[in-house]
Amino acid sequence: MSRNLPTSVARIDEDIAALAAITEPGRPYTRRAFTPIFLEGRAWLARRFEAAGLTVHIDAAGNLIGRRAGLKPDLGTIMLGSHSDTVPEGGRYDGIAGVSAALEVARALSDLNIALEHDLEIIDFLAEEVSIFGVSCVGSRGISGTRPSAWLARESDGIALSQAIETVGGKVAQDAIRSDIAAFLELHIEQGPVLENEALDIGVVTAIAGITRIEIIVEGRADHAGTTPMGSRKDALSAAARIALAVEAEASDLAKSDYHFAATVGEFRMEPNAANVVPSQVTMLIDARAERRADMEDFLARLSAKVAAVATETGVTVAAPRVLSDNMPTPGDADVLTVLEAACEATDARFRRMASGAGHDTAWMARITKAAMIFVPCVGGRSHTPDESATPQDIALGAAVLLEAVQRLDKDLQEKK
Amino acid sequence: MSRNLPTSVARIDEDIAALAAITEPGRPYTRRAFTPIFLEGRAWLARRFEAAGLTVHIDAAGNLIGRRAGLKPDLGTIMLGSHSDTVPEGGRYDGIAGVSAALEVARALSDLNIALEHDLEIIDFLAEEVSIFGVSCVGSRGISGTRPSAWLARESDGIALSQAIETVGGKVAQDAIRSDIAAFLELHIEQGPVLENEALDIGVVTAIAGITRIEIIVEGRADHAGTTPMGSRKDALSAAARIALAVEAEASDLAKSDYHFAATVGEFRMEPNAANVVPSQVTMLIDARAERRADMEDFLARLSAKVAAVATETGVTVAAPRVLSDNMPTPGDADVLTVLEAACEATDARFRRMASGAGHDTAWMARITKAAMIFVPCVGGRSHTPDESATPQDIALGAAVLLEAVQRLDKDLQEKK
Repeated sequence: MSRNLPTSVARIDEDIAALAAITEPGRPYTRRAFTPIFLEGRAWLARRFEAAGLTVHIDAAGNLIGRRAGLKPDLGTIMLGSHSDTVPEGGRYDGIAGVSAALEVARALSDLNIALEHDLEIIDFLAEEVSIFGVSCVGSRGISGTRPSAWLARESDGIALSQAIETVGGKVAQDAIRSDIAAFLELHIEQGPVLENEALDIGVVTAIAGITRIEIIVEGRADHAGTTPMGSRKDALSAAARIALAVEAEASDLAKSDYHFAATVGEFRMEPNAANVVPSQVTMLIDARAERRADMEDFLARLSAKVAAVATETGVTVAAPRVLSDNMPTPGDADVLTVLEAACEATDARFRRMASGAGHDTAWMARITKAAMIFVPCVGGRSHTPDESATPQDIALGAAVLLEAVQRLDKDLQEKK
Repeated sequence: MSRNLPTSVARIDEDIAALAAITEPGRPYTRRAFTPIFLEGRAWLARRFEAAGLTVHIDAAGNLIGRRAGLKPDLGTIMLGSHSDTVPEGGRYDGIAGVSAALEVARALSDLNIALEHDLEIIDFLAEEVSIFGVSCVGSRGISGTRPSAWLARESDGIALSQAIETVGGKVAQDAIRSDIAAFLELHIEQGPVLENEALDIGVVTAIAGITRIEIIVEGRADHAGTTPMGSRKDALSAAARIALAVEAEASDLAKSDYHFAATVGEFRMEPNAANVVPSQVTMLIDARAERRADMEDFLARLSAKVAAVATETGVTVAAPRVLSDNMPTPGDADVLTVLEAACEATDARFRRMASGAGHDTAWMARITKAAMIFVPCVGGRSHTPDESATPQDIALGAAVLLEAVQRLDKDLQEKK
């Protein structure tokens, strides 16, 4: 489908290709936060921001920001952006697509000679992915006041996170929290197959799912695999297999609603893992994601019941599931979602409402401002792999939706004020 | 139960306690073949053999042998024995009980002033357990002509197995194969719970199970655990869990017959094994044991059908199960089994026929002579662990059964000749 967009497919393609070329040698696409190659990517981005007429700086939390002054600075700032760091051998588009689309909004505004009332900021958040310090969303947590102070002492290769933030240009001692942001928007690739499967252009993200991590340890008994009769065993794998299937069945049942729910046994370790010994222990780590908190609570209750039933049925010992971490879902701001839908309609983009199963900087920005995000399709739903793919056309259409939404917010936010 | 046995509980207790004390420091009970501590154990055993009036030598295959001459050397040799090597942190009784019981037969014969017609040999087979060279039953395969010549070049810590056999006193260049053995008997702890559960003294081993090792590789697809809808996944764990439960169900069904059958998923490795990624691959190793070959063939057919059904049901790719190794069952010699049962009755030992789920040197000796074995109870069926336990009383009763059987064979084998 060829469209007459106010945003440039060619410029977005150029942004993404240039950043893709800045990667660890022989390891596409790797630009982990705080590494030299990450700083090289950012230096390129900063020049690209400047070329778009933006005023560039690194904020106290280590985020790269390009600023376009508005007519009424007192109204506050409309912020757009995502992140330029990647997972190891991650994708070409995860994060980068959102930074490029945000930058393209600024470029298109200039092309169209549009002056906004609000200040506009394009942001590249620091370390959205799990970084070399083992923590994620360092930049968005920094400016939303949700970065735990204990994180600053975390070390990687003898360097503390506090030092690393200073090295990228942040100022750990300064107050990084922003109170002037009137709205925040993020474009991101979907990282799932829904938009592609339904031949849609845009996902309007109603909520970012809460993530709960649960550990289950099954304790059986190591016995000789040759001599122990089938009926005399306490096989930890037998119980663990039943629990893994129960996780899948309960998650599939909860996913039947219109609200996103998924659960995965991502880690599974068996002991002693020897050919001729009946398995004595299995440790499982479950990753569960829910758009609605009630679903997560339902899942945890169902899981506990299933685990108890499996223990009774198989004769092994299974401790109650242990919640290792538990984050609440973040709904998108209702007003901003309405604006985004209107922008989709104005741009002639086919869209649907959907939840994000992955975490994003937007979840932290929602603590301090009206925030929401949109998705663009990614091929085959693949992400966090070198195969990750999205088209510059889809991203340019997403940028056009952001451009329309920014202009509408520029008016709406004023009226509400 | 106190019995008036011709065999000595005290001497057996002394044998086992002395060997138990010869272990790697802080690692009971570890006396792996070819290690210095193993040679120390053997030196103690050789003195103990000599003290019983036996003529001691190491044969060409590296077995320790104590010989008691018979009245008619032309009749050949009745051989009794087991092994003195252990698995790492293995048991106090696995192998040792059988060497001590065999030695006790020789001692009891001398106590009773009984001269056999046949020569009698007490043997400590070299390296019955999987050794530091990764292979097992080195001594019994050596004298039965079933030791693959390629094994001799296997290395451990830069030493070839051929050198290691020479170091323990063997002669690799000499012909080690024995053609003079009229019968072979082995006593071993059961390594399972059957005798204990049924309050029996002796298991007369009808067959040593065949062992088949089968690899199954499940290929799913790595997807983002948060964003990939439950219905759009190819979760390798989901398929692997179904296969593990099918292995258990089919093995339990085959085990319902009077013949031993067991199957175990002993190894289970998942990739990428990351909390937030849908599992892409699981590799399983199945250990299956059958007293009857037909059961193993039935199991393999059922497994292939189940695996194909799971692949269809879950949408993942599963290659046909791959047989990595496949050993036939070894039936005990019918004549020797009859003698052993008569010996149990004469000794007033409560016995049952049963199969061995574990492999033993007897399986190799059956290639060159009339061979069979008996089991004595082991506590809780536990083996290959420091917890392994058997009573000197039970072993002495087993030795008395062997003593009776040896005297009967000494006559029967002559008559048949």
